[in-house]
Amino acid sequence: MTTIVRGGTVVNADRSFRADVLCHEGKIVAVGENLDTPAHAQVIDAGGQYVMPGGIDPHTHMQLPFMGTVTADDFFTGTAAGLAGGTTTIMDFVIPNPQQSLLEAYHTWRGWAKKAAGDYTFHVAVTWWNETVHADMGTLVREHGVNSFKHFMAYKNAIMADDELLIKSFARALELGAIPTVHAENGELVFQLQQELLKKGITGPVAHPLSRPPAVEAEAANRAIAIANVMNTPVYIVHVSCAESLEAITRARAKGQRVYGEALAGHLVIDDSVYRSNDLEFAAAHVMSPPFRGKHHQAALWQGLQGGNLQTTATDHCTFCAEQKATGYDDFTKIPNGCGGVEDRMAIVWNAGVNTGKLTPSEFVRVTSANAAQIFNMYPRKGVVAVGADADLVVWDPEGTRTISAKTQFAKGGFNVFEGRTVRGIPTHTLAAGKLVFQRGELRAVEGAGRHVDRPAFSPFIGAAMQRA
Amino acid sequence: MTTIVRGGTVVNADRSFRADVLCHEGKIVAVGENLDTPAHAQVIDAGGQYVMPGGIDPHTHMQLPFMGTVTADDFFTGTAAGLAGGTTTIMDFVIPNPQQSLLEAYHTWRGWAKKAAGDYTFHVAVTWWNETVHADMGTLVREHGVNSFKHFMAYKNAIMADDELLIKSFARALELGAIPTVHAENGELVFQLQQELLKKGITGPVAHPLSRPPAVEAEAANRAIAIANVMNTPVYIVHVSCAESLEAITRARAKGQRVYGEALAGHLVIDDSVYRSNDLEFAAAHVMSPPFRGKHHQAALWQGLQGGNLQTTATDHCTFCAEQKATGYDDFTKIPNGCGGVEDRMAIVWNAGVNTGKLTPSEFVRVTSANAAQIFNMYPRKGVVAVGADADLVVWDPEGTRTISAKTQFAKGGFNVFEGRTVRGIPTHTLAAGKLVFQRGELRAVEGAGRHVDRPAFSPFIGAAMQRA
Amino acid sequence: MTTIVRGGTVVNADRSFRADVLCHEGKIVAVGENLDTPAHAQVIDAGGQYVMPGGIDPHTHMQLPFMGTVTADDFFTGTAAGLAGGTTTIMDFVIPNPQQSLLEAYHTWRGWAKKAAGDYTFHVAVTWWNETVHADMGTLVREHGVNSFKHFMAYKNAIMADDELLIKSFARALELGAIPTVHAENGELVFQLQQELLKKGITGPVAHPLSRPPAVEAEAANRAIAIANVMNTPVYIVHVSCAESLEAITRARAKGQRVYGEALAGHLVIDDSVYRSNDLEFAAAHVMSPPFRGKHHQAALWQGLQGGNLQTTATDHCTFCAEQKATGYDDFTKIPNGCGGVEDRMAIVWNAGVNTGKLTPSEFVRVTSANAAQIFNMYPRKGVVAVGADADLVVWDPEGTRTISAKTQFAKGGFNVFEGRTVRGIPTHTLAAGKLVFQRGELRAVEGAGRHVDRPAFSPFIGAAMQRA
Amino acid sequence: MTTIVRGGTVVNADRSFRADVLCHEGKIVAVGENLDTPAHAQVIDAGGQYVMPGGIDPHTHMQLPFMGTVTADDFFTGTAAGLAGGTTTIMDFVIPNPQQSLLEAYHTWRGWAKKAAGDYTFHVAVTWWNETVHADMGTLVREHGVNSFKHFMAYKNAIMADDELLIKSFARALELGAIPTVHAENGELVFQLQQELLKKGITGPVAHPLSRPPAVEAEAANRAIAIANVMNTPVYIVHVSCAESLEAITRARAKGQRVYGEALAGHLVIDDSVYRSNDLEFAAAHVMSPPFRGKHHQAALWQGLQGGNLQTTATDHCTFCAEQKATGYDDFTKIPNGCGGVEDRMAIVWNAGVNTGKLTPSEFVRVTSANAAQIFNMYPRKGVVAVGADADLVVWDPEGTRTISAKTQFAKGGFNVFEGRTVRGIPTHTLAAGKLVFQRGELRAVEGAGRHVDRPAFSPFIGAAMQRA
Repeated sequence: MTTIVRGGTVVNADRSFRADVLCHEGKIVAVGENLDTPAHAQVIDAGGQYVMPGGIDPHTHMQLPFMGTVTADDFFTGTAAGLAGGTTTIMDFVIPNPQQSLLEAYHTWRGWAKKAAGDYTFHVAVTWWNETVHADMGTLVREHGVNSFKHFMAYKNAIMADDELLIKSFARALELGAIPTVHAENGELVFQLQQELLKKGITGPVAHPLSRPPAVEAEAANRAIAIANVMNTPVYIVHVSCAESLEAITRARAKGQRVYGEALAGHLVIDDSVYRSNDLEFAAAHVMSPPFRGKHHQAALWQGLQGGNLQTTATDHCTFCAEQKATGYDDFTKIPNGCGGVEDRMAIVWNAGVNTGKLTPSEFVRVTSANAAQIFNMYPRKGVVAVGADADLVVWDPEGTRTISAKTQFAKGGFNVFEGRTVRGIPTHTLAAGKLVFQRGELRAVEGAGRHVDRPAFSPFIGAAMQRA
Repeated sequence: MTTIVRGGTVVNADRSFRADVLCHEGKIVAVGENLDTPAHAQVIDAGGQYVMPGGIDPHTHMQLPFMGTVTADDFFTGTAAGLAGGTTTIMDFVIPNPQQSLLEAYHTWRGWAKKAAGDYTFHVAVTWWNETVHADMGTLVREHGVNSFKHFMAYKNAIMADDELLIKSFARALELGAIPTVHAENGELVFQLQQELLKKGITGPVAHPLSRPPAVEAEAANRAIAIANVMNTPVYIVHVSCAESLEAITRARAKGQRVYGEALAGHLVIDDSVYRSNDLEFAAAHVMSPPFRGKHHQAALWQGLQGGNLQTTATDHCTFCAEQKATGYDDFTKIPNGCGGVEDRMAIVWNAGVNTGKLTPSEFVRVTSANAAQIFNMYPRKGVVAVGADADLVVWDPEGTRTISAKTQFAKGGFNVFEGRTVRGIPTHTLAAGKLVFQRGELRAVEGAGRHVDRPAFSPFIGAAMQRA
Repeated sequence: MTTIVRGGTVVNADRSFRADVLCHEGKIVAVGENLDTPAHAQVIDAGGQYVMPGGIDPHTHMQLPFMGTVTADDFFTGTAAGLAGGTTTIMDFVIPNPQQSLLEAYHTWRGWAKKAAGDYTFHVAVTWWNETVHADMGTLVREHGVNSFKHFMAYKNAIMADDELLIKSFARALELGAIPTVHAENGELVFQLQQELLKKGITGPVAHPLSRPPAVEAEAANRAIAIANVMNTPVYIVHVSCAESLEAITRARAKGQRVYGEALAGHLVIDDSVYRSNDLEFAAAHVMSPPFRGKHHQAALWQGLQGGNLQTTATDHCTFCAEQKATGYDDFTKIPNGCGGVEDRMAIVWNAGVNTGKLTPSEFVRVTSANAAQIFNMYPRKGVVAVGADADLVVWDPEGTRTISAKTQFAKGGFNVFEGRTVRGIPTHTLAAGKLVFQRGELRAVEGAGRHVDRPAFSPFIGAAMQRA
Repeated sequence: MTTIVRGGTVVNADRSFRADVLCHEGKIVAVGENLDTPAHAQVIDAGGQYVMPGGIDPHTHMQLPFMGTVTADDFFTGTAAGLAGGTTTIMDFVIPNPQQSLLEAYHTWRGWAKKAAGDYTFHVAVTWWNETVHADMGTLVREHGVNSFKHFMAYKNAIMADDELLIKSFARALELGAIPTVHAENGELVFQLQQELLKKGITGPVAHPLSRPPAVEAEAANRAIAIANVMNTPVYIVHVSCAESLEAITRARAKGQRVYGEALAGHLVIDDSVYRSNDLEFAAAHVMSPPFRGKHHQAALWQGLQGGNLQTTATDHCTFCAEQKATGYDDFTKIPNGCGGVEDRMAIVWNAGVNTGKLTPSEFVRVTSANAAQIFNMYPRKGVVAVGADADLVVWDPEGTRTISAKTQFAKGGFNVFEGRTVRGIPTHTLAAGKLVFQRGELRAVEGAGRHVDRPAFSPFIGAAMQRA
């Protein structure tokens, strides 16, 4: 299978330039001006458009069993929705139950993921600790292409990691050359605030953000960073949602510490007024953690992306339908946490970031693809338009517009947090492993076409941190 | 008993002025220029000297059972040493064993303190949690004049408070109008670092500071402040020893949060080179937590006092003799933690603070006496030279000098961390409750003369924090 | 003349307590519970009320010739309005024209001030430099009770001070033991932005804040602080209006530098939406520099007062009537800059500060009176209710309410930026130098009753800074 | 001319990989594993070595007339020394005298540069202002490949730019798509401190750093950043030497502002003890501005490079011989300012940065080459090993060692601030425009072989800043 993308402007993290891109058997085999078009090659006209590395969403949850139910999108529908939005690789999470073998859980998730239409790879959560967990981490890194481990500092009485676990797991990650990642919220404080709110009779979705104020997130971010500092590991903070949490990252980076931060497309453009809606279904549909924040936090997150203190954008795609959300209308602590977005992230970030002059196109590529590829050691297979890379490409029409709606989306769940927003800057074509999987609104995702992406340990991008000591 | 201090310059937190001070039956009854000298009154000539409120050391441990032994100074020798240095009130700590009744422990300590020569009052540590602890906190505040509770974030497997305990105790303190205080070090990190160091064969006192780097303290300070922020309580951080910890306090205060910080006289002038001494006895004698730090931290602490981000100076007076310290020569984790200082704090702070122009005399009074009295609600009984106040006075000769030495000190333990330093600015007379207890090197401390100081809840000084919400 | 204020709660900066206050011949002669009432003494019932030191407004401009006109309030009406609001002392500004003798200007202002009804004292502006200015500064300090000098970093082509002047004047102030103060706005940037806006045809009051964004103020504040740091002087920043400027102060204070900041009552509660009003008269009436800011700056200023990084509140009282303001409707750079407030400051700060729990009553006294008295060395003559102090008192009813309006105010100018606000917490009586000058809405101000307050150099409050070196 | 570099590890800013590099007619024409070696090609064996883009030194002064004399290195000897150290491009400065035409000065410098052995390009200083300067800036950008302008905030009474000039020049740069750069020191403060020191009789080199403390630099950096913020331009701060200055940059970047900072190799490893040497010649040889700083500033600068708040490393190469320096032994203000380093920068940064684990090899390429190329819009012609780029390469032996000495250096001036340091990590071969100009200690630089590098305006790297508004 040979495809040539002709006449576009290739955008990489370091620069943009006019070039054709020739893809063959899933790889990019040539990048240059006025390439010859091989016979039988499929030709995609990218005139007037940008040709960028396919998006990497470093934070999704497909087919996740969570809070007693399972998310609406499985690995097929979820990755397919990603392809429709220009995202060709997702990083999902294996989340073992406490006491469950990490390896067993890993294999379970790998099984679920077989149906994926786009490429995928897994962070593995460390939700408990004993010697087998220690051993399994080694096996996962050495034999299964895992180089990142997740820790939930929230969710008390479920999967919450206390400091002892964080310290032991970070130390193990250091040995293995893997990067620890954290969901930063102080679970004890959340629990206490939840109990207080319920006691006071504030039980609906409006209570959700009140139970998780910015200080709760900032505390945990600061603590994870301090532990990483002392243990001499890098650390990656998922879904940074507020100014205070970003400040903790910024302080550490200014001291030279290898700390990375991720912003969600939702947190970049949606504020916490959604929880005060009288429409319970609407409010509940926005329940995720960390919650949406006051408007000034959005400005802070954009500044974080501009100044390089945040590196990636993600979605935490984790869709539940209205019936699932409804179980918690009377007790917000029972609303399954999660929102969608894998299909819309690229357009949302372009529209609010590039169109406003906040980001250059190259910076857009960094925060939607290249940085994630580098931090998690998939680069240059992913994250760059270059010879030898996977032929994961998105052809981007900066003048094309689309009005986002649950009615027209490919993702499941029946809701879209970006409902009604019209974005300028949309994908016209997506190539995944050299195959045209999306073309001007038409999705051609193939169940099972996605591949697992092995990620070696000791990412050279963060090598220095790995060696300090 | 009537005493008049004649001809000095009274220094209060707000100003200094020429005045005589007349004391009668333990109280100050007149402050003014050219007071008449009552018949039979004892006359103290303060010409050319300052007359200041007696020092308050908000952090001492007399007769403390700790790490399997008991400190060298009991309440008599410890408070007597304080009087010799111009400190007329100490704030000590009741530290219940986990599972021990707070009230029972309180009464035990009150019993020990009966022999004190100077006034005393107690912070009570919350080292565990259940309903009786909750109830005892109430009893202590309402019936026993306690308005501050201490939490140790260090000392894993002993008295360490986890976040759940902190949250519950802070919430209880809020109800009661008491102020939570914390020893801020992340005990999990300390434990992990201790184990690593022992494993590596670094077992002597030199390992002590390596097991407690600044990041370990700063993390805990930041966490305690975050919890106080969320729970809406004030918080007081004891023995702030490093720039990073101070920064956490400074950030919070800049946001208007009611956070207070205490610096130890030792941390203000001693650096961590002491641990690298080849003299094991000398090195071990300096083992305390947090440890002495690199020199630049001293500059930071002084700046904290100057800028008002630190409010008090203390000592953490907790003396062990060489034999006691020797038990840990081969395993630094077994060295009883603690150093002395109650006798020298005032002179050390004056010499390094006022003589260098860092502090004005009024600021000296604030950080050695008035601020502690205000924060812990003993003001204006303590902390000010004014009619109605306790006649606790120190007459201070700014030109007098003394070379500090264990050989000449009144405190026990046989060691002095300030050994050999010559200070300019020393007490010539100390009055405690109107009695002349120290005069030009002669100590007249009386066993049992000290009184317990009841401290009411809801300190007006921090009232605003108590009422935010 | 003898007056006794009975039954109230005296509030000082350090504490509050039940006491009667006896005043005789302009001084406070006794403070205590259950004082005897002398025969013939005037009795003021302060039951249920607070008795506080009269307010000090450290920043007013009465009878100021400015931008081609003269302010509406002269020293009589202006100080009288202050008395009605509980402010018994104002600090006004002598502003020589460039090339005018400082002494000559000083005497001119002293002449104008003779009619004042309340006490007054002067900062003297240094608007140009040569040897006579250097000499006059000395004369003013040594012979005329001046201990503070003002520098305008804004107002290019008029009274703007460049760095050379700042450096020379700060150095001279250091020798003299005086404190430099600055109006911090980068006048070059303001000028450039004004020209740009006029060129673009944005000529009305709406352009005023656009020509003076926060960055313009923060730059100048930072520069003044840096110069003070290098020259080793304290520095006082007048009318800090924005978060960025406060941050510069906070950073310096955290490093121990003696920097002081003043917030205006207006900046604490009014936002910049006033400039976008379609009512030109209304918008122009709010033109002052620095301008009112976005709402989040108000929160920052309150945090500054709470955390001690701002010390004083003032008004920059400088009233112009509508006709005067109208001269600049078509060219905002010609609108005379200034707003009123001397009459309302105390109530505005109490209502928004104490009623909300942001400040304790003692903190209110600090920021409205005591701190200004200490910084500018009028303490304890002013700023405290104590024996020996001037009998400047305000009896404050925390439950009394008043709706502020230009219609009912005593100040001139016909406008009030606080129009329509109802405050809870108002003065019922004001005593100035022992005379009852305001009683429950009735003003008894006497022209010429005010006195000049000499302020000695080398304020002990900031002595340490004076001596560093 | 065809050359192939075989068997090395290519290091680019984004990654490293095993590849041969084929160069033909001055360009890189192939990068890949196991490339065929063309007949007649020169073969360089890079086995076990790194192959990196030639260094760019963004800050040199060759043949500079300064302080009444001319630097020792001209464009031939200076660029030749650079080639010996792996630096293939220098960015020098055209510095017109006030009142001199920018174009005239530009052509003068271009004439001097004709003899250069390596590539060069010019920042042009704006040292005065009128309409012809405004016009010349346009001509330089549009016709002469200049896209950066320099402003000296120091050097009062010579080339110092005041705020008015900065504002006008920054505004002009914005129109033209050029980037303003600044030497950030407050020249008024420097002048005042110099006069004070001379008056006190402190006249030798020891006075130099005392006349330029960190606060002087930080003030100017903050001011330049504020002006850039208000004028909406990017800004590049040359030779950031201290923590305080870096903090100003870090604060601005955290707010998303496009600010860039440069560290000098000297400031990264040399401290201010050099000025306290009794050897006057030695001390004077280190006189440059900003001066070398206390040790803790070095740690800060490294953290700046690690955290991405500083982007480039340079030298400010500006060599004077001992006789020239001697003119100021009795008056430090007359010592010609400047030190060398162009020959040693790469090795110094590698040795202290990569060998210690502070930087990865890719980060080394960023801070020595790629970032400068991107900021100043020479990328990808310079700054990357890629097809189409100039064949400017350095073959780097990470195990090779060299002891730096003036005796063995190629640069003139007879002094080396890095004298006696042994570095591990040295260039074995340098290719400039495809020609082997340095090989294992043998320099083959050719006078006049260097070319001027045109730099277009509107660098896409900082495009977003250019378009905000």
